[in-house]
Amino acid sequence: MAAPVTLRPTEDEIIENFFAPLAGPAGLGLRDDAALLSVADDSELVMTTDVLTSGVHFFASDPPDAIARKALRVNLSDLAAKAAEPIGFLLGLALPGDWTAEWLDGFAKGLADDAACFACPLIGGDTVKSLGGLTLTITALGTVPKGKFIPRRGVEEGDVLYVTGTIGDAALGLRLRRGNGAERPWGQALSSPARDYLLMRYLLPLPRLGLRDGLRAHARAAMDVSDGLLGDLTQMLRLSGMTAELALTEIPLSKAARQALAQDPTLVEPMLTGGDDYEILCAVAPENEAGFKQEAAAGGLTVTPLARARRGEEKPLVKDAEGLPLAFSAASFRHF
Amino acid sequence: MAAPVTLRPTEDEIIENFFAPLAGPAGLGLRDDAALLSVADDSELVMTTDVLTSGVHFFASDPPDAIARKALRVNLSDLAAKAAEPIGFLLGLALPGDWTAEWLDGFAKGLADDAACFACPLIGGDTVKSLGGLTLTITALGTVPKGKFIPRRGVEEGDVLYVTGTIGDAALGLRLRRGNGAERPWGQALSSPARDYLLMRYLLPLPRLGLRDGLRAHARAAMDVSDGLLGDLTQMLRLSGMTAELALTEIPLSKAARQALAQDPTLVEPMLTGGDDYEILCAVAPENEAGFKQEAAAGGLTVTPLARARRGEEKPLVKDAEGLPLAFSAASFRHF
Repeated sequence: MAAPVTLRPTEDEIIENFFAPLAGPAGLGLRDDAALLSVADDSELVMTTDVLTSGVHFFASDPPDAIARKALRVNLSDLAAKAAEPIGFLLGLALPGDWTAEWLDGFAKGLADDAACFACPLIGGDTVKSLGGLTLTITALGTVPKGKFIPRRGVEEGDVLYVTGTIGDAALGLRLRRGNGAERPWGQALSSPARDYLLMRYLLPLPRLGLRDGLRAHARAAMDVSDGLLGDLTQMLRLSGMTAELALTEIPLSKAARQALAQDPTLVEPMLTGGDDYEILCAVAPENEAGFKQEAAAGGLTVTPLARARRGEEKPLVKDAEGLPLAFSAASFRHF
Repeated sequence: MAAPVTLRPTEDEIIENFFAPLAGPAGLGLRDDAALLSVADDSELVMTTDVLTSGVHFFASDPPDAIARKALRVNLSDLAAKAAEPIGFLLGLALPGDWTAEWLDGFAKGLADDAACFACPLIGGDTVKSLGGLTLTITALGTVPKGKFIPRRGVEEGDVLYVTGTIGDAALGLRLRRGNGAERPWGQALSSPARDYLLMRYLLPLPRLGLRDGLRAHARAAMDVSDGLLGDLTQMLRLSGMTAELALTEIPLSKAARQALAQDPTLVEPMLTGGDDYEILCAVAPENEAGFKQEAAAGGLTVTPLARARRGEEKPLVKDAEGLPLAFSAASFRHF
């Protein structure tokens, strides 16, 4: 008896059935060689690319809709940090041999939901075969009013460094995800909602687009925290010849992260140096703090002052509750 | 005795040493979260993405500079077909575990040469680890004067279909490359320069940017021929409700391809349906033919009329020297 043949869509059918429905006007129905976009005369274009590979940035067994959402959201996080308004994205999809129409359907649905939710339509892309695992590359585009791009460089002495949301959740979520039920005591001690919260923070980043007005009106410099707070802070300050001293007690932590940290104080290292926070770090002049916090709140975001920038070449320090500096083996998440 | 440790650059060092030197002003030194670009008021933005994966779009053993060049050039070919002027590109690089600094150096040098040659600087990117093979995603940007984008759709009855350069070389080159010295008789019968020519046509596409003025002034519709002449022609004509009849003897072939075809007439199928030509196919109204040819020549390109478009739903036909229609098993190259 012959084995049943699973019919899979061709490349044209993939585009027609799964991706063309997501296309914005600039995508020309995904039936041309390229996308065509007009940029308003008073705007500048902001562009970012992030590559996500199976087993490195997500688990091959993650739900396909979550993989799609994460790929789009990590790009939107970069746009958010630059105070840009998303206008569209291009998707490069290298599919491994074992993809199914069902998987692709879930993937496209997740992408469609987020594209609609963040008003960032698909405008182009390419789908190819991969002999290895899934690789996803998204290039996202946004606009800022001319002259309103928020650079990474530009922190001035005395500026207050703010961060959105909470730090370290995703690094803990990744550790829980890796544990597969055989976790360490801190994981077992977590309440079920706390555990779910941390897992979700790893699975689905929340691009902080609500900070746009706050950044445009009040921030001197900004970046997204994706490779660990300490490493990213070091990078941002170094570009401006600055450094800072942080108190561990001032770093915003979620309730779930506090629960975990109480069980295992060594978690402070992955929480501050692990990746995937996708929060925004920015520098605000003291006279703009009140306005900045007001705009952030209006955008639905909590922002927390971390430290004050001061001139210096040395790495930023984090001091614990006793005022002693913490020493870490790695300052930021590295793939290499 | 401990094994010698090979020190490889970190992600920051990769950016700093290999890619930052290629960055155009919009790339902000590759030290920010995003690129920032101004588009002139009288221009529109054209964007395209192509993904290339190891073992599918190139051989892992190809010279690294050629892999880089091909990835950029296939994108430039899309821009060329839209009569766009390249302005920059973003590079998404998923590197397998066994990359070396030497490989990356060759890769970056090839990319730098082509970026300079085509005046298309690097403006952003992302470098990550791949657990599978190398995956390369380039998003290229170009501009056209407002209203001057050449769409794929828009062929009108009576338009003459033109193609640049020659067809089928790369499909033959790929077959030679796969043969690894144990080729079929047609490969062995080729002269050494003919063989090298075909191999090079597969390895290094030539984006036909010289057709820009010709397209802008005289073409109604255009696309790049990347998935086989017949399949791409079918796609373009179908979008406009057109079809056409081609004479095999009118399809432009290189001297090397003619040599191969004389040895083995069955090669006509891969030549007309294989991928990687990266020529431009376009529709020109009869009254514009003279001007179009003149502009193409001024751009250093040979263009050949293939057929005349006529209304119809049926697939375009190719007739052989005796006027008999050729039948092919596949109309275009497919990865899936």
